[in-house]
Amino acid sequence: MRWRLDIAYDGTAFSGWAAQPGLRTVQAELEGWLVKVLRLDAPVSLVCAGRTDAGVHARGQVAHVDLPHTCVDDEGQALTRRLHRALPDDLVIRRISAAPPGFDARFSAIWRRYVYRLSDGETPPDPLVRNHVLRITDRVDIEAMNSAVPELLGLRDFAAFCRQRQGGSTIRTLLDLAAERRPDVIEITIRADAFCHSMVRSLVGALLAVGSGRRDLDWLSTIIDRAVRDSSVTVMPAHGLTLEEVGYPPHDQLASRAELARSRRARVDGPETADE
Amino acid sequence: MRWRLDIAYDGTAFSGWAAQPGLRTVQAELEGWLVKVLRLDAPVSLVCAGRTDAGVHARGQVAHVDLPHTCVDDEGQALTRRLHRALPDDLVIRRISAAPPGFDARFSAIWRRYVYRLSDGETPPDPLVRNHVLRITDRVDIEAMNSAVPELLGLRDFAAFCRQRQGGSTIRTLLDLAAERRPDVIEITIRADAFCHSMVRSLVGALLAVGSGRRDLDWLSTIIDRAVRDSSVTVMPAHGLTLEEVGYPPHDQLASRAELARSRRARVDGPETADE
Repeated sequence: MRWRLDIAYDGTAFSGWAAQPGLRTVQAELEGWLVKVLRLDAPVSLVCAGRTDAGVHARGQVAHVDLPHTCVDDEGQALTRRLHRALPDDLVIRRISAAPPGFDARFSAIWRRYVYRLSDGETPPDPLVRNHVLRITDRVDIEAMNSAVPELLGLRDFAAFCRQRQGGSTIRTLLDLAAERRPDVIEITIRADAFCHSMVRSLVGALLAVGSGRRDLDWLSTIIDRAVRDSSVTVMPAHGLTLEEVGYPPHDQLASRAELARSRRARVDGPETADE
Repeated sequence: MRWRLDIAYDGTAFSGWAAQPGLRTVQAELEGWLVKVLRLDAPVSLVCAGRTDAGVHARGQVAHVDLPHTCVDDEGQALTRRLHRALPDDLVIRRISAAPPGFDARFSAIWRRYVYRLSDGETPPDPLVRNHVLRITDRVDIEAMNSAVPELLGLRDFAAFCRQRQGGSTIRTLLDLAAERRPDVIEITIRADAFCHSMVRSLVGALLAVGSGRRDLDWLSTIIDRAVRDSSVTVMPAHGLTLEEVGYPPHDQLASRAELARSRRARVDGPETADE
């Protein structure tokens, strides 16, 4: 029986999502508590939509887990409550629900939305949100940043912004990219079908280089078509980045979407491609 | 020369605003850094609008400080920048500006606005804001809470909600009180001319008792006229409380307002009344 988990975490004290020996990760923490709370005699395995890096946060992470039929006897509320009591403060299960047929948290997903948050020379920093909002002293020009957006949107090779992996494709569809100055924070929203490794933080770094006047649109046009990662692009700190939401198609398309993504990833990426 | 400081802090690691021997307080931290950064040879003394308790946060705290004429040579921007670099992460000077004539951060203020934030059984808690949002498991009825508001608004004796002090008045004017369920948090906004000690957190405790169904409006009507603090009112944890804003009258009324407040406080309260 497959369950969908909606998950939020403060990434500060985690070495990212993916389990790694000897490190505190979201996956390992959750898998461990599921086994303990449900008194299972075998380990369980979580699959998530966005394998966030060390220090990256999430409000809208989605994962699935297959559990023995007998061990959850209602619609997930009791397990949600028991995990609430058990889990550490920086990790929250927002919802557990029975996964619809064909649902795969990773391969059924059609987009991931991240928000990068920062305060600049013009926005006084707010100490109450300092765990997930980066503080810079440059003044950032939001219009200049948004003027760079059309260059980046759509289906293209994002090799210049991705940490290279042998055999991995860096072709992605960037669906939204927008910078906005709110009263207390600057938010840069990025939505794509998927991301390759370090892509979100590199895109934010490129936009901020333009927004702070250190680089111009000509620079961006030049690097954008490079076939390998460009060292002039700064990868921004993980600290300001939050995975906000994952999009899925209607229920009757979950299985076909997963099939399509799985075969495409297997063909061009191999099984171990990282999302963020 | 008098300066106005707009201040924000995460109260978690502070023993409140007011300097106390051997404890880390906002006042002592700021006074110490002002002396260091300006290389003064005498201590300085800050006066604030809302003397927050241990663990209470602020986004809109206001204070004033009198500094020797020679030591700030522009309109405060250079000192703001130097303090930015010097201050710890949980304490931010949002603005330093020359105080208008007659300005007194405490006695010129005409109102203080606090917000108490919590997540309940219906709102999944957000781990990214857990430092300033209280998490409770009861489900809270916002309408029931707001139905109790008319009982409390206006000029009245709040003795039932205040920690008693010898000779201190507990008469205050409650200007606004409203509970609102937002997508990710419940916010209870409270604005009054001033607050006596523990008044904000006791009012929130009384509202939440009604909102969670543990008490009814009859109970509130009964205790509201008590002349001493009522032990059936829960003082909510400091954790969820933030001083958001302090209101001042137009510049030409700053001095007369301060004069009025000072004489009233001296008459009924003595000099050491606490605001929150």
